Amino acid sequence: MSTGTVVQKIERAEQSVVSGLAELGVATVHEAQGRTGLLASYMRPIYRRARIAGSAVTVSVPPGDNWMIHVALEQLSEGDVLVVAPTSPCSDGYFGDLLAVSSMAKGCRGLVIDAGVRDTRELEDMGFPVWSKAVFSQGTIKASLGAVNLPISCAGTEVAPGDVIVADDDGVCVVKRENAPTVLEAARKREAMEEEKRTLLAAGEASLDVFNLRGRLADHGINYI
Amino acid sequence: MSTGTVVQKIERAEQSVVSGLAELGVATVHEAQGRTGLLASYMRPIYRRARIAGSAVTVSVPPGDNWMIHVALEQLSEGDVLVVAPTSPCSDGYFGDLLAVSSMAKGCRGLVIDAGVRDTRELEDMGFPVWSKAVFSQGTIKASLGAVNLPISCAGTEVAPGDVIVADDDGVCVVKRENAPTVLEAARKREAMEEEKRTLLAAGEASLDVFNLRGRLADHGINYI
Amino acid sequence: MSTGTVVQKIERAEQSVVSGLAELGVATVHEAQGRTGLLASYMRPIYRRARIAGSAVTVSVPPGDNWMIHVALEQLSEGDVLVVAPTSPCSDGYFGDLLAVSSMAKGCRGLVIDAGVRDTRELEDMGFPVWSKAVFSQGTIKASLGAVNLPISCAGTEVAPGDVIVADDDGVCVVKRENAPTVLEAARKREAMEEEKRTLLAAGEASLDVFNLRGRLADHGINYI
Amino acid sequence: MSTGTVVQKIERAEQSVVSGLAELGVATVHEAQGRTGLLASYMRPIYRRARIAGSAVTVSVPPGDNWMIHVALEQLSEGDVLVVAPTSPCSDGYFGDLLAVSSMAKGCRGLVIDAGVRDTRELEDMGFPVWSKAVFSQGTIKASLGAVNLPISCAGTEVAPGDVIVADDDGVCVVKRENAPTVLEAARKREAMEEEKRTLLAAGEASLDVFNLRGRLADHGINYI
Amino acid sequence: MSTGTVVQKIERAEQSVVSGLAELGVATVHEAQGRTGLLASYMRPIYRRARIAGSAVTVSVPPGDNWMIHVALEQLSEGDVLVVAPTSPCSDGYFGDLLAVSSMAKGCRGLVIDAGVRDTRELEDMGFPVWSKAVFSQGTIKASLGAVNLPISCAGTEVAPGDVIVADDDGVCVVKRENAPTVLEAARKREAMEEEKRTLLAAGEASLDVFNLRGRLADHGINYI
Amino acid sequence: MSTGTVVQKIERAEQSVVSGLAELGVATVHEAQGRTGLLASYMRPIYRRARIAGSAVTVSVPPGDNWMIHVALEQLSEGDVLVVAPTSPCSDGYFGDLLAVSSMAKGCRGLVIDAGVRDTRELEDMGFPVWSKAVFSQGTIKASLGAVNLPISCAGTEVAPGDVIVADDDGVCVVKRENAPTVLEAARKREAMEEEKRTLLAAGEASLDVFNLRGRLADHGINYI
Repeated sequence: MSTGTVVQKIERAEQSVVSGLAELGVATVHEAQGRTGLLASYMRPIYRRARIAGSAVTVSVPPGDNWMIHVALEQLSEGDVLVVAPTSPCSDGYFGDLLAVSSMAKGCRGLVIDAGVRDTRELEDMGFPVWSKAVFSQGTIKASLGAVNLPISCAGTEVAPGDVIVADDDGVCVVKRENAPTVLEAARKREAMEEEKRTLLAAGEASLDVFNLRGRLADHGINYI
Repeated sequence: MSTGTVVQKIERAEQSVVSGLAELGVATVHEAQGRTGLLASYMRPIYRRARIAGSAVTVSVPPGDNWMIHVALEQLSEGDVLVVAPTSPCSDGYFGDLLAVSSMAKGCRGLVIDAGVRDTRELEDMGFPVWSKAVFSQGTIKASLGAVNLPISCAGTEVAPGDVIVADDDGVCVVKRENAPTVLEAARKREAMEEEKRTLLAAGEASLDVFNLRGRLADHGINYI
Repeated sequence: MSTGTVVQKIERAEQSVVSGLAELGVATVHEAQGRTGLLASYMRPIYRRARIAGSAVTVSVPPGDNWMIHVALEQLSEGDVLVVAPTSPCSDGYFGDLLAVSSMAKGCRGLVIDAGVRDTRELEDMGFPVWSKAVFSQGTIKASLGAVNLPISCAGTEVAPGDVIVADDDGVCVVKRENAPTVLEAARKREAMEEEKRTLLAAGEASLDVFNLRGRLADHGINYI
Repeated sequence: MSTGTVVQKIERAEQSVVSGLAELGVATVHEAQGRTGLLASYMRPIYRRARIAGSAVTVSVPPGDNWMIHVALEQLSEGDVLVVAPTSPCSDGYFGDLLAVSSMAKGCRGLVIDAGVRDTRELEDMGFPVWSKAVFSQGTIKASLGAVNLPISCAGTEVAPGDVIVADDDGVCVVKRENAPTVLEAARKREAMEEEKRTLLAAGEASLDVFNLRGRLADHGINYI
Repeated sequence: MSTGTVVQKIERAEQSVVSGLAELGVATVHEAQGRTGLLASYMRPIYRRARIAGSAVTVSVPPGDNWMIHVALEQLSEGDVLVVAPTSPCSDGYFGDLLAVSSMAKGCRGLVIDAGVRDTRELEDMGFPVWSKAVFSQGTIKASLGAVNLPISCAGTEVAPGDVIVADDDGVCVVKRENAPTVLEAARKREAMEEEKRTLLAAGEASLDVFNLRGRLADHGINYI
Repeated sequence: MSTGTVVQKIERAEQSVVSGLAELGVATVHEAQGRTGLLASYMRPIYRRARIAGSAVTVSVPPGDNWMIHVALEQLSEGDVLVVAPTSPCSDGYFGDLLAVSSMAKGCRGLVIDAGVRDTRELEDMGFPVWSKAVFSQGTIKASLGAVNLPISCAGTEVAPGDVIVADDDGVCVVKRENAPTVLEAARKREAMEEEKRTLLAAGEASLDVFNLRGRLADHGINYI
């Protein structure tokens, strides 16, 4: 059994790659890697306009018990994002402003948690963004261990330690660490192409033409009345 | 079967009527037309303080396929609102910033979609409001047709092309095109009456008296202890 | 049967105690009273950054009928919070800007309702905060009575008239009136202790040490790799 | 306003057509009419293995008030199905064994209700099937009117009085009255074709061949490894 | 704090009263006590056709921890029903066939749990009925205490130890212990009256007449077309 | 990209191991492998009392498109279980009686699908069990490919091709193929131990003693009143 395991050394993507992905945002990165990697849409930011990317430090926690998050904080490095999933569905408030202070002191860029969070006003004031399933103050205990930096399933998607987490107002996307450079390149190409299209569309050109979607319409039986 | 049908000419309400309804807002318009026309309460704005009205261009789309939205964009006129419903429940991100650029170039005032939307930060920056069931980046394909400007059921309510859509922080309300002038008149009367009541209530008069609700209390067995 | 009952005199906590609890917020108060008293996490504020406390005036209402809220408004005193629960699940819009004007004229500090609310933009402009299950414009009738100032179950938690309601961005917490002074004292102690810990954590000390959580790790089989 | 309206004469489909649709069931009928007409999947039967079809007598009811169902019972004829939708979301128990006794005395074949039902054990013992959103005993009042035999939106789908309701373990499907004979014919053809395919499939022939789906696989880039 | 408290002596209603309520069932009992006492409609039986009543032994449990249920089993007497609520929302499988064997050995009649249950096939084979929020095998730990026989909030409703729990296919209803004899009497009267009405309705008399609901229709503006 | 990929050769666990796991059931197997592997609790059987185990043939499908299931059927061997997950949330009816006929002809033991299913009455009559998120007749198209026998995430849990699926009235559990023999052994030991305990508990021994849970109660502050 893996309960109690803490993996201390994990591989991380290059910081320049991570920063590049942050600029591009969730929707573009998701498309660039073949429409994969999204966490479930119930994962919402606690405040608007945060946009981050970072290396996942993964935490598996028992329901209603945040002891292992304390253990995980010690494993954080500059540029990391905490990714927390309970072993069964839970909406308790595992994380609040004190843990955020500690996380920020280690250079952590934010939290992704398939459970609840509290002190959301203070977290916004501190500039520590969180994507969560719930906002809920329910306190947690420190009675049982979980695991740090083993692969977890978070909001329906696998996250391995060191994977790149991209998160913004649209939600959360995971990029496999080993694919990060390729995905960044593909995402930049996509963005460049989109920029061209944006200009054409703003000038009033039909999206059917800009995206080359008109030709097949007749084959599929379009019927303009 | 209607798949592939695009109705190009639709009747719209007079622009002055539409603008009048926008000013009055969802709650007042809903009351003025006899407490009908609301879309389900899960339809939420992606950002606060937008308040619009416009003529519905309706789009029926397959799950996970936004080809027909591209077709619909070409049918938009100044003052329209896109109203999109999938043929089965779906939360994919059918619409993002590029489609919004194109919609705005045609004078479209916003989107109502019983599914997901993405690029929500950019949409707010552009001032293109959306009411949706979900915020989700999941990409869609362009493989199958749907229909444009046929009546649809959106979030539990029928919407015919040309109906007036009123949307604000409270949600979305549909006004049948042919009733729009009458509803506007009734809504204005209601607002005027409410203004009088507001003054009385602000001065401390009891709402039971202002709304004439005290008389029947005894008949119904009120029991003050 | 209690239908129609309106209790006019209720005990309230001292205003200084209520104000003290407002400053401390939901998460701290919840912890200070032994992790009890939270309403369900689906109770969300209609706008961010409101933080209030007040004495509960409780209202039990039939589904889709807000007559009893009008009756309750007359029972409000300076510093009260309206707490409304329907007798069966309902998301209708029981409360809007006119009722808020009347409530504010009586000194009411906000509304907690296990149902829907409307005119949310106007409520924010007026500075009248609401925590609700839904934002929905659906109008209500005035045909049947309920009860005012009897104990109710609201969003899964018992609320007695005069209990102290604390509400902020994290949700809603109920403090039994008779416990309010003790809870305030405990909450202040907790906050003081947290302040010390915040300084240590900001300086980079490990949370495992600051919270004295490291010692038992070995007993529980922690395994650093 | 339509509140209080009771339409007493409605057109119904021929009984032989209705019976034919009952035999074919929801999935086949839904396919035969072009994949339309399904009510939302949350509409579930209270007991298994009922399979009915009948002519819709539609009822619009206020939340928590079943007076109008009593009015509707008087409008039932042999072979009808009651279709009930509240004007806002509600899970109260509008209908129980006494109303079922009365409905059966009129020849009613079942109930479809976008709300709650009670006495479900007795209903099964009586052989009166119900498709509902909830099983819930919450009692309803008789204080406000609704409408009988006007078009309603039930579980996301429009139902007009006299439309044919088909319901079985798979859910509920609505067939427009005027289309019923054509849909029956198409459904029978579909069933005959399926019967042939069933024989081939049972004999072990590949479904890719039986449904002629293999040819396009290569074009779409299938890659057998 | 009440954590760890086990109240060993509780008052129970007379067994004859409890048995009487079991025969009448949830819907009738709920009506007879003024339409109160229902647990939320998501509390469903794991198998059909069980109908029980018993005295509540209440258990408050931490999320994911069933230690306190073991403690509670020792407090069970002949004719009791276990009522379990977690201190925050949880769907873990707190209870399975071994605990049922132990419960039955003490004369316990069933379980009501606002969480998950497992071994449901075995429970049906043993004839031990359960009403729960979920069927889920997720195992629980034995690390923290809760409380036995203190008042709890279960599925939105207060339950005190010794209250009478009535449960059947329609859900779960709580009768305050002190009211049980009065409620039984009222429920029997109601059932007798319903029996008379059943005969009239079966004979084809209109429910509007049998329930005396026709008179007020005209006042409310009924409009037969 | 993996779209279109069909892996034809997969490793499977030994049939005797698979059969052994079927007899033990979901709850026991889940416990025996350290409380892991459960699919979400919303995955429910379409009829009661089925209990199966088999080797997973995994299918990733686009929303509303079941073409790839036809492709997967050809890859089925005696003793397999189809495991299907859409690439975004979907409740459409991907699978019905014809596909079940074909699956059974190949020796398939059942279907696990994080989406909808139809023809549920026929499936029960055929004895082909299904665990699904929804029962819904909504038809699907055959326009886009997915993947067969690549690892998928289904209802929150990773499933690799060849993993052992155990499913019964309690839900669905996944056993990693390589762990299956060890898990079977552990599960059998657990069952044997439970059998001993069952006898003690049936004889009236306290579960606190049988499970050796009484000793630590005092340390944790139990307080018998």
